[in-house]
Amino acid sequence: MVEKKGVTILLHSGDLDKALAAFIVATGAAAKGIPTTMFFTFWGLNVIQQNGAKSAKLSKMNMAGIGTRMIKRLMKKKHVASLEELIKDAGELGVRLVACEMTMDLMNIPRESLLPEIKEIGGVGTFLDAAQNSDTHFVF
Amino acid sequence: MVEKKGVTILLHSGDLDKALAAFIVATGAAAKGIPTTMFFTFWGLNVIQQNGAKSAKLSKMNMAGIGTRMIKRLMKKKHVASLEELIKDAGELGVRLVACEMTMDLMNIPRESLLPEIKEIGGVGTFLDAAQNSDTHFVF
Amino acid sequence: MVEKKGVTILLHSGDLDKALAAFIVATGAAAKGIPTTMFFTFWGLNVIQQNGAKSAKLSKMNMAGIGTRMIKRLMKKKHVASLEELIKDAGELGVRLVACEMTMDLMNIPRESLLPEIKEIGGVGTFLDAAQNSDTHFVF
Repeated sequence: MVEKKGVTILLHSGDLDKALAAFIVATGAAAKGIPTTMFFTFWGLNVIQQNGAKSAKLSKMNMAGIGTRMIKRLMKKKHVASLEELIKDAGELGVRLVACEMTMDLMNIPRESLLPEIKEIGGVGTFLDAAQNSDTHFVF
Repeated sequence: MVEKKGVTILLHSGDLDKALAAFIVATGAAAKGIPTTMFFTFWGLNVIQQNGAKSAKLSKMNMAGIGTRMIKRLMKKKHVASLEELIKDAGELGVRLVACEMTMDLMNIPRESLLPEIKEIGGVGTFLDAAQNSDTHFVF
Repeated sequence: MVEKKGVTILLHSGDLDKALAAFIVATGAAAKGIPTTMFFTFWGLNVIQQNGAKSAKLSKMNMAGIGTRMIKRLMKKKHVASLEELIKDAGELGVRLVACEMTMDLMNIPRESLLPEIKEIGGVGTFLDAAQNSDTHFVF
């Protein structure tokens, strides 16, 4: 077993399924004590804005007959954490959550619209520094 | 040249092109003797179910006028392995193929519906352990 | 701070936003002196063909009311480099740009159609060698 330096996750997508996967991996890593950073860019910014997590949709409308509403109902029934809960968990577990400065500037997203869990705004340099200090990287 | 600890691939998508890329990289790595793990989650589960590989479609309908049926014909003509063949190759090359427990539970996918090459079912902990013991990670 | 061996980026998508993210990360890494390789496969090949970067579209049509034309106008106004400029920058910064041989063969893409910045054509073995000599990997 090797000592792990850290996990860096780039969330580029605003799709519910991609965001869920990113946060499940991030909270799982943080719960194991691995330093974890998430960087939100392009459509990924939608997810961390007020009401953004709630309105995220599946990337595929109707795979196997399962739509966004049905998957949320299933997740609840099976006691799988919702995206809103996962974002709170990430904050509590100390996942470093960074919003992309360029995207915010480009799409005129004000800092106030971000969820309180997001304590940092940074550019590609910030992202690459985090990545350089990690040894495990995922793009969703 | 550094000694490689391993490759871990997360297949989140059920698109034919993403699945092909994931399996081409996985079988390529395994053929080089690199310990390789693939973890199938969300739509990626579709690909490793009976008849799932056969019915996978391109992520873009008609890029450059090429659709799913045409690309399969082209692949055959150019002797590129099909997705079904690549999955078999992965099994034979000893790629560790793990199906996501949470997705199976959520979508009511029975173990019997999985291809025989899939010998393991695991959660985010299993995935992160594999990732921690690898030094190269790809998400498709 | 750890010494970085290198960054390897796989661009599988032809979407404008994914391609922008890939090139922003690649040029950012190269500007920091990190050896950086980009490998273009499937729809990613479109981006590095003549006029391909210009005609790339957003993956989501109208997220937050912003379409392809509007985002390009915004990028210009905010002095964010265009995809065409980023590709040139990547070439000048010494990013190693490799086109996927299998995709070119499959889609009948002639070498002459590639941008002059693309100096190399390679297969999955080339990609895996680059990945093995890097410690940071991103798939877009």
